[in-house]
Amino acid sequence: MSMSTSSPRLQIAPNGPEFSRIVLGLWRLGSWQMTAQQRVSFLEQALALGITTIDQADIYGDYQSESLLGEAIALAPHLRDQFQFVSKCGIKLVSDKRPAHGMQHYDTSAAHIIASAEQSLRAMQIEQLDLLLIHRPDPLMDADEIAGAFRHLQESGKVRYFGVSNFTNSQFELLASRFPLVTNQVELSLLHMQALHDGTLDLCQQLRIAPMIWSALGGGNLFRLLAEQDERSQRISAVLARIAAELEVSPGTIALAWILQHPSRPLVLTGSGRLAAIQEAVNATAITLSREQWFALWCASAGKNVD
Amino acid sequence: MSMSTSSPRLQIAPNGPEFSRIVLGLWRLGSWQMTAQQRVSFLEQALALGITTIDQADIYGDYQSESLLGEAIALAPHLRDQFQFVSKCGIKLVSDKRPAHGMQHYDTSAAHIIASAEQSLRAMQIEQLDLLLIHRPDPLMDADEIAGAFRHLQESGKVRYFGVSNFTNSQFELLASRFPLVTNQVELSLLHMQALHDGTLDLCQQLRIAPMIWSALGGGNLFRLLAEQDERSQRISAVLARIAAELEVSPGTIALAWILQHPSRPLVLTGSGRLAAIQEAVNATAITLSREQWFALWCASAGKNVD
Amino acid sequence: MSMSTSSPRLQIAPNGPEFSRIVLGLWRLGSWQMTAQQRVSFLEQALALGITTIDQADIYGDYQSESLLGEAIALAPHLRDQFQFVSKCGIKLVSDKRPAHGMQHYDTSAAHIIASAEQSLRAMQIEQLDLLLIHRPDPLMDADEIAGAFRHLQESGKVRYFGVSNFTNSQFELLASRFPLVTNQVELSLLHMQALHDGTLDLCQQLRIAPMIWSALGGGNLFRLLAEQDERSQRISAVLARIAAELEVSPGTIALAWILQHPSRPLVLTGSGRLAAIQEAVNATAITLSREQWFALWCASAGKNVD
Repeated sequence: MSMSTSSPRLQIAPNGPEFSRIVLGLWRLGSWQMTAQQRVSFLEQALALGITTIDQADIYGDYQSESLLGEAIALAPHLRDQFQFVSKCGIKLVSDKRPAHGMQHYDTSAAHIIASAEQSLRAMQIEQLDLLLIHRPDPLMDADEIAGAFRHLQESGKVRYFGVSNFTNSQFELLASRFPLVTNQVELSLLHMQALHDGTLDLCQQLRIAPMIWSALGGGNLFRLLAEQDERSQRISAVLARIAAELEVSPGTIALAWILQHPSRPLVLTGSGRLAAIQEAVNATAITLSREQWFALWCASAGKNVD
Repeated sequence: MSMSTSSPRLQIAPNGPEFSRIVLGLWRLGSWQMTAQQRVSFLEQALALGITTIDQADIYGDYQSESLLGEAIALAPHLRDQFQFVSKCGIKLVSDKRPAHGMQHYDTSAAHIIASAEQSLRAMQIEQLDLLLIHRPDPLMDADEIAGAFRHLQESGKVRYFGVSNFTNSQFELLASRFPLVTNQVELSLLHMQALHDGTLDLCQQLRIAPMIWSALGGGNLFRLLAEQDERSQRISAVLARIAAELEVSPGTIALAWILQHPSRPLVLTGSGRLAAIQEAVNATAITLSREQWFALWCASAGKNVD
Repeated sequence: MSMSTSSPRLQIAPNGPEFSRIVLGLWRLGSWQMTAQQRVSFLEQALALGITTIDQADIYGDYQSESLLGEAIALAPHLRDQFQFVSKCGIKLVSDKRPAHGMQHYDTSAAHIIASAEQSLRAMQIEQLDLLLIHRPDPLMDADEIAGAFRHLQESGKVRYFGVSNFTNSQFELLASRFPLVTNQVELSLLHMQALHDGTLDLCQQLRIAPMIWSALGGGNLFRLLAEQDERSQRISAVLARIAAELEVSPGTIALAWILQHPSRPLVLTGSGRLAAIQEAVNATAITLSREQWFALWCASAGKNVD
């Protein structure tokens, strides 16, 4: 695998935006101990790998991750037009940054959605979000009220497109009946295959909506020392190692290629601040597994043969 | 909370009937030991609270509840035009009132639906049902046959609208593909949140169909002596008591307000013959919980924080 | 029950083919130790019972069942126009007949679907399949690619209609959004009622798609010696025996009548090489159970009364 592999781009939905297949997840930005100038360098190195899309949320890093990104954007304003910015709203965390919150809960009121999106713009020091997601399915969500907030944000030019995260199909279809959604950001990995089997990816493919995938490496559990892994992770790791050797790439690259190959055309979020790890993710976009390789991994995860 | 609170009314579906948000459930009418004249008074007191909708079923009270209501209607015929009457059909109970039934089973044949609706009219001494529900999802239901029976009853003026009870989404969508349905009457309470999470209320909201809620107080389990409650009920009861104190209403009022606040716009059935309990239900229509209060109850029921 | 009962026919979907309600399943053809001429006789006896539809799959009998049928067709070419031929593709078994397969996996690539259908035609020595099914839901299925393969096979005259087997509703709706499907072949029996309750038959009925039923006798478990049966099978067997005596047919006939009576209009596959067993299946098409009989069997299977 050449270090010159670059992430391809994809229109994520009919009439939707064009994003990079590999998306820079900045969930842990605050823990990377980077100066603002180092953050600028990190963003420029990501761009050089073809990664043009950034994933954020109001709550990441205890409400600080967006501001840390914003400091870098302020230092290097030319980055504003080179990235697509994704953020999320709808969860209220208990935090000394939000003293009004008495307990963790969801809020998908129009007032909170609009205020949260506007705060994300200020924190990231940008004029427009390319995509705003409802972070979790709120059992109290009023689809008409959410659609009204989306329309307001779209008409004012503050957000271009809208989507959801962690929604079941009935929740997705409810909100999509009121406003066009361009993605469902969900968990998928060899350690967490639920979206593959519960209909989530079926509906995405049916609607030609590319899912965005979080925790695509299973939180790193596949890459611990063998002795620290449970039996299932050991099984998967062994097959990853074998295929990685066959294709001369890293096991992490194989784990992500396994996801990217799904016909729903998933986008994969990275979670690392190390450029080498991000390069491994980008490398996955150039890999095509054979069906036998793909199913060898599926079977290692499921602990059984296909029926 | 003033004793003058009155139940608001709601159009339960596009082109559907207008019902009171609080519905008088007469499931246990036979056990209340009321004379026919006392039943008249009970109905008039409900009306005075804004409750204009009555929920019945052929089988309630071992096939006797509808007749007990009918005796009151015969004594006070002016009540006929002041109430909307809901009944149900499709279950055959073993009963000495129905000697032909050899075992409990479902019957959604056109012949049974029509005969049952006509019998409900005779028993309640009314000319027309406002709403007839299929009581349980019959695995043998033939959607075309049911739709034929519904059309017959509608064209003959015997029933105005049709719905279902306890249907899954796929069962609802099957029957709705043949005939317009205006509600799904389902169980929901702080002790039974399934409809909130399995897609049932999502579909109701999507179709703008107000669900009708039975067992909204969890069969009274939340209001036993603390020592008699299991751990989960104790958790919920404690939060209900706290919020009830904050809002100066009863815990039962809070438990129903928690349901009424859902954006699918549920109607809530009462089950009591005590006017004070019915007043508590009506009071819930005037309460709006904060999102923190609503989620404090959800978390007490789920036994965890939101994700 | 007269031995002259004959299987009726059914149009299995709007604009779909007409099949016999009882379908000759040739899964185990290789184990019946028939000469090619005996296979011809077997087919002609099935035809005499009104069975005009044959169910096959590429993989049946370790990839040999289609060829065994083909030898009979070659001996009696007039049979070609008297039967409708169903086959399946999409599973790759480890077999010395397919040395390239390193592990059991699915393959719903266009190349494999087309090659498999063409191989089925050659093996069965016929010019056209009436119906081709995707055998199992492949988590890697690309609905557009499958639809392209179906279109190619249809336009070249090699396959008339297309369907699936063992698909969930979301998988069915995904593929049906790209190409019209005429059936979902699923497991259903008194020992396996899942399709009755998970929405599969609801969707079939909604779309007016007749399901095809495999393992309709529960793999024969209902007909072992009583002492060899588990408690549930004993319960079901006892009710089957009682109703069989009432209606003067065999318990197997009752077990199949229980399925055929479902309003989704299922077709039932046989699995036996014994003519008497096939006659018992055909006899089921002339039986109508009372609702009490039908629910007595349902309750015996569920181990509870209806709610």
